[in-house]
Amino acid sequence: MGPGPVNAHPRVLRAMAADLLGQFDPEMTGYMNEVMALYRPIFGTDNRWTFLVDGTARAGIEAALVSLAAPGDRVLVVKFGRFGLLLTEILERLGAVVETVEAPWGETVPLDAIAEAIARTGPKVVACVHGDTSTTMAQPLDGLGALCRAAGTYLYVDATATIGGMAVAADRWEADIVTGGLQKCLGGPSGSAPITLSARAAEHIAGRRHVEQGIRRADIADGAGARIGSNYFDLAMIMDYWGEKRLNHHTEATTMLYGARECARVVLAEGLERRFARHAAAGRAVTAGVRAMGLTVFGDDRFRMTNVTGILIPKGVDGERVRTAMREHFEIEIGSAFGPLQGRIWRIGAMGYNAMKHKVLLTLGALEAVLRAEGYRFPAGAGVDAALEAWS
Amino acid sequence: MGPGPVNAHPRVLRAMAADLLGQFDPEMTGYMNEVMALYRPIFGTDNRWTFLVDGTARAGIEAALVSLAAPGDRVLVVKFGRFGLLLTEILERLGAVVETVEAPWGETVPLDAIAEAIARTGPKVVACVHGDTSTTMAQPLDGLGALCRAAGTYLYVDATATIGGMAVAADRWEADIVTGGLQKCLGGPSGSAPITLSARAAEHIAGRRHVEQGIRRADIADGAGARIGSNYFDLAMIMDYWGEKRLNHHTEATTMLYGARECARVVLAEGLERRFARHAAAGRAVTAGVRAMGLTVFGDDRFRMTNVTGILIPKGVDGERVRTAMREHFEIEIGSAFGPLQGRIWRIGAMGYNAMKHKVLLTLGALEAVLRAEGYRFPAGAGVDAALEAWS
Repeated sequence: MGPGPVNAHPRVLRAMAADLLGQFDPEMTGYMNEVMALYRPIFGTDNRWTFLVDGTARAGIEAALVSLAAPGDRVLVVKFGRFGLLLTEILERLGAVVETVEAPWGETVPLDAIAEAIARTGPKVVACVHGDTSTTMAQPLDGLGALCRAAGTYLYVDATATIGGMAVAADRWEADIVTGGLQKCLGGPSGSAPITLSARAAEHIAGRRHVEQGIRRADIADGAGARIGSNYFDLAMIMDYWGEKRLNHHTEATTMLYGARECARVVLAEGLERRFARHAAAGRAVTAGVRAMGLTVFGDDRFRMTNVTGILIPKGVDGERVRTAMREHFEIEIGSAFGPLQGRIWRIGAMGYNAMKHKVLLTLGALEAVLRAEGYRFPAGAGVDAALEAWS
Repeated sequence: MGPGPVNAHPRVLRAMAADLLGQFDPEMTGYMNEVMALYRPIFGTDNRWTFLVDGTARAGIEAALVSLAAPGDRVLVVKFGRFGLLLTEILERLGAVVETVEAPWGETVPLDAIAEAIARTGPKVVACVHGDTSTTMAQPLDGLGALCRAAGTYLYVDATATIGGMAVAADRWEADIVTGGLQKCLGGPSGSAPITLSARAAEHIAGRRHVEQGIRRADIADGAGARIGSNYFDLAMIMDYWGEKRLNHHTEATTMLYGARECARVVLAEGLERRFARHAAAGRAVTAGVRAMGLTVFGDDRFRMTNVTGILIPKGVDGERVRTAMREHFEIEIGSAFGPLQGRIWRIGAMGYNAMKHKVLLTLGALEAVLRAEGYRFPAGAGVDAALEAWS
């Protein structure tokens, strides 16, 4: 019950035990096409270029940024937590000139501050995290894409922590690239990064295409743009692999593709709205439960993610001892924190297969017992009762 | 029965259906430590730094090269096929100055030619493929590490296509980094890249460590060397994640780790020498079988890989029609080829779980039937009979 990775859905686990296929076997390329179709509604998009990057969520982020931004390009990072820092980190390494517009941990960045920063810095790309699990905040994104388009800027959004749990709306946001990961609200294992690209992002990146020697073909022309600084993360070549050209690039990670496909099938069978409502109920229950125990929830209530809740560690309680006791007595993992929040908050996730009533209630019951043993005083049973009531 | 990806071992598939664990759960970090120990004998090394890169084999290659070589560094690529071209491609993108020493497709590069090229170009790194499936050639590597050490050069070896099927001997070769993939002779899915680093390579790369903001710790100092150009492929941070520091980097791809672990357990339970002998028997059987059918085997016999065999497509036969008929009538996939060999050879693999007597014999029987239907004349049954005899 941490902020991810979490337990996978049993159907996803079973799907990953299927035997492999050759990478250009018609059955395999058929599955690849299915995956493209399955992830479009999950990203809230009609984008043709919707597929997987073979690596963890972080691989998707790096692929998006290195393919969009060339060395020397100015990129504005909207930063309100650790994963905003990660964006600056990746961008600096690929030689971009990084500007930031920031909010303190526990808040989000107002749209007018971003507008001002775009006007001030004139970036080629704006990069933003949707839900940053380090602070449990979700950045409002409606209107940001329109600002970017008006300024001739590409918008990249990292939706790793929200996809499948909160509404991701690539088209409504007018985002140019959105990436995710399986290991949070999609209920799968880390190791595959779903990605979607707008037509204009795909065109820009195809303009940087430099097909590697050894697999060049007469029907695939190089672009005039700067060659992408990574071979593995070259989205131009990866699109040529997922598209009709079927240009050989990496060998698709078959088992992870089976897992990603099954995650999407489980999500769509439940229905996106029902799924978001389930995550919201779980978040509401955790919040109500810990507040009834006299604990303080971290961060601005208006912008908190539904699928992970930060809880201030009360004075006199050793946060790591509590986490260890939760793990050792109840086999339940809850999260610690990073950076300025390290040692200050716990993070309880309710993501994907874990965003279930019984798991939330059992977790709060366990937390009650552990906190009692640590000498923290509160009305016994209050957490579980409040959560049960708040669920519905 | 292509040159990889191939069918996975059933034990590997079952292992990947296990539920996930938190990334710092003691059970999970215990598995990570086990994986490090299991891959040492498979790489033929005592190297402490033996672990997984989360991505396909190509991810392991890029991680090795971007972590060893900084922009402007001279790198000598030993090139005798498509995957040598891939090394030059990755290196150019990361800003290295690439020199090459080459052999025509179907041959390998003599050690004295490499020695001469090292003396001429004074590289920081020598990069070489062990077995290049595009040509079916295996480059002899004994003595190359000694040459490199004498010249103050690091040696990188891509053993993707040989690991688990032919002897990989990182220590005997005195190689500084060797990488692999699961999807060939290790009998697993693509998506995890085992890697091993010598102590001096690890020290060099730790000297380039620049821990990302947001997870910096007082006990982990940055190095004086040039920052590594990729975050995802930064082996300094990945070593800090796999080592005692357990510095958070990516979220380890749990299911792929289970798969990689089970691949290694299957390999070591069979025994490396027995496994290499089994691959050699399979290669011998394919070779004898196709020769008995009057076909010509591609490439210099002295240096051919045991686990993949190139076969010249005879005059008057349409290679793609044969591959399609093999797939449609017999559900057996054999490989086509790249670059200068495209349309000239088929490639029959016998890797990992596919390097078995019955699979080789059934494949040759199917090939006989398909070639007969295409009008190619040869003594019926000769291929299967010769292969059966050659196996033992």
